[in-house]
Amino acid sequence: MRPITLLTDYGLGDEFVGVCHAVMARIAPESRVIDLSHGIPRHGVLQGALVLQRSLPYAPPGVHVAVVDPEVGAPRRAIALRTLDEDRYLVGPDNGLLLPAAERFGGVAEAVEISESPWRLEPVSATFHGRDLFAPIGARLAVGEPLAAAGRPLEPGELVPLDLPRPRVSAGELEAIAVGVDGFGNVSLLAAHDDLASTGFRLGQPLVVRAGDAALPASYGRTFADVGPGAAIVYEDAARHVAVAVNTGDAAAALGGLRPGAQVTVAAVPLP
Amino acid sequence: MRPITLLTDYGLGDEFVGVCHAVMARIAPESRVIDLSHGIPRHGVLQGALVLQRSLPYAPPGVHVAVVDPEVGAPRRAIALRTLDEDRYLVGPDNGLLLPAAERFGGVAEAVEISESPWRLEPVSATFHGRDLFAPIGARLAVGEPLAAAGRPLEPGELVPLDLPRPRVSAGELEAIAVGVDGFGNVSLLAAHDDLASTGFRLGQPLVVRAGDAALPASYGRTFADVGPGAAIVYEDAARHVAVAVNTGDAAAALGGLRPGAQVTVAAVPLP
Amino acid sequence: MRPITLLTDYGLGDEFVGVCHAVMARIAPESRVIDLSHGIPRHGVLQGALVLQRSLPYAPPGVHVAVVDPEVGAPRRAIALRTLDEDRYLVGPDNGLLLPAAERFGGVAEAVEISESPWRLEPVSATFHGRDLFAPIGARLAVGEPLAAAGRPLEPGELVPLDLPRPRVSAGELEAIAVGVDGFGNVSLLAAHDDLASTGFRLGQPLVVRAGDAALPASYGRTFADVGPGAAIVYEDAARHVAVAVNTGDAAAALGGLRPGAQVTVAAVPLP
Repeated sequence: MRPITLLTDYGLGDEFVGVCHAVMARIAPESRVIDLSHGIPRHGVLQGALVLQRSLPYAPPGVHVAVVDPEVGAPRRAIALRTLDEDRYLVGPDNGLLLPAAERFGGVAEAVEISESPWRLEPVSATFHGRDLFAPIGARLAVGEPLAAAGRPLEPGELVPLDLPRPRVSAGELEAIAVGVDGFGNVSLLAAHDDLASTGFRLGQPLVVRAGDAALPASYGRTFADVGPGAAIVYEDAARHVAVAVNTGDAAAALGGLRPGAQVTVAAVPLP
Repeated sequence: MRPITLLTDYGLGDEFVGVCHAVMARIAPESRVIDLSHGIPRHGVLQGALVLQRSLPYAPPGVHVAVVDPEVGAPRRAIALRTLDEDRYLVGPDNGLLLPAAERFGGVAEAVEISESPWRLEPVSATFHGRDLFAPIGARLAVGEPLAAAGRPLEPGELVPLDLPRPRVSAGELEAIAVGVDGFGNVSLLAAHDDLASTGFRLGQPLVVRAGDAALPASYGRTFADVGPGAAIVYEDAARHVAVAVNTGDAAAALGGLRPGAQVTVAAVPLP
Repeated sequence: MRPITLLTDYGLGDEFVGVCHAVMARIAPESRVIDLSHGIPRHGVLQGALVLQRSLPYAPPGVHVAVVDPEVGAPRRAIALRTLDEDRYLVGPDNGLLLPAAERFGGVAEAVEISESPWRLEPVSATFHGRDLFAPIGARLAVGEPLAAAGRPLEPGELVPLDLPRPRVSAGELEAIAVGVDGFGNVSLLAAHDDLASTGFRLGQPLVVRAGDAALPASYGRTFADVGPGAAIVYEDAARHVAVAVNTGDAAAALGGLRPGAQVTVAAVPLP
């Protein structure tokens, strides 16, 4: 009996997530279901893909259902796939959401198109494929039914890729998009710690973080406690992204109410 | 060991839901507990009843605890009942909340009043019957104790009915109340797809949706993708309600921040 | 296999809680995990301690992980402890968060410092000890590994105590801090029902509740139904705190948007 993880942009204000759990419990009553997150920004395929990618290494191998699906109802494909390493099963729309996570486990070993799957709940609604397609197919895989029976085979190379915007780095400056704002207002950028190497930033160095019209003085550090309360730091966060935080404060608010997708620049403060 | 579902208007901002889970875990450690929704609008008995009714067919038969209870502390009855079909057990206040769901499973076969149940947690608080009454009684039923032992027998005909406001339908117009706003701002009306028949709406027909002072041009369609981004559609949603959505937008906001309970009119646009 | 409870100030907007669940599921796949609350106000050590204290008596004995940790990354200690009664295990930062709950179970029988625990996930991040320290150590205790193996022994007397501000009580007046605002806007004070004794309040007596500039007429009652809709009462809530509510309304809003930590005064209305 495989565990299931579930990640969506449904939020918890209505019964969408609960109904997906209900569907899974009917088919796979012994499978544990772990809610990775339902707070992905609405239609945030890029954010969802990155959260899935960084969360799955902490989860037990099993079935990983993810639904961030702005094109539900349109003729986009729906897919289930198996990864090369650890035999993890990923289920969701074919819009790039699953691929960064699959790559972390050696890439896609096998994929199927599931829109016409014999396991779907009939009648399939036009708008709630989490309930009618992804939850039941994830649950069937969790009880051990074979991937090949879930749908029609697909070449892994046919899957829709995800366009990951690369950070721009130069001496004294890094420009990247914000991909996450956590519950504390900490902002993570789509840039890895390694991307900072060519900036030449040194621990303790004064920096300025800019987003739109907002400018936030900060320093380069290792953890919140490296700066005083209310002061901002640029650091490597727990997901190994370059991130901006305000000690006991809210960096996203200090950056003008910044939201995922915004362009952020981190620059060295020039000597006077 | 029966699974338990839980639906409340408690929200997730405090520990109310967690404490109900804790109480259930002490009594029924082997029962899975599925959170259907805790985002029912506060004291929204009608909304809670409709969400319960449309969600339970997706859940495995078991014990279904629901708490939307504006009269907690007043001498309203608390009840547990068994449905005629599938032997599902429903537990909650006697204010109509449970009845639409029970009717979907053939109606009430057996009911008991549980306010003085021997299974309640003593002392019963005046304000938190989820913890003291509904959770422990639901959990006892989940481990297989008999309904008759939960309280005093009640005639099913004595149960408080729910007043479901019917939509008003005429040629070219439907008027109904909004019963749900999901996390995407999609608005569902207390009207079934069949109610649209006498309006004479045809697929693609231009409509106008009105709520209070707000008027939203829309068209009659099947799914979001039938209209362009930012455009509104009237459609049948995944719960088979007539619903209003804005493709990649927020229909509730476009209707002036509409909330459940508001009166909504959908009318054909007159020819010029 | 012990059950685990989890309480944090992470909120549910991101994947922090989900990743803690994932880590626990890898180590303790058979342990049930109960989310007590993730809505503790950010860095609200006092509020978290009180919620934990009042919730645990409802939870089965097991492992209780709690993370409200404003000093994460600074050299504060991280601890795991066993209570004298019921052999409950508590895991979290050493900032007072765990102690009121431990005292409810006879106090601390045994404690260890876990910052350098052999069970932590390497590399330990500077900012996400829920994932790297508290979740894996809680899960190891849940599968039955001994507390002494989790870290370095500590004298219970060395643990950082929690400063609980006492209410000020006189004839006709009680002053205390607000420690909780639930999803309905009900406000609970850090004062027990017994503290009301020396005020001389009688059931039905008119009172005035003050917070900052706001003043709310109320009466002393037993439950919401003791007053009309829209009227305010001072009562003993389900956690046995003195509390303020507005029947079918929102007391926190009526008190000027009051938040946990605010000073609140409840006073008898002088005779004219």
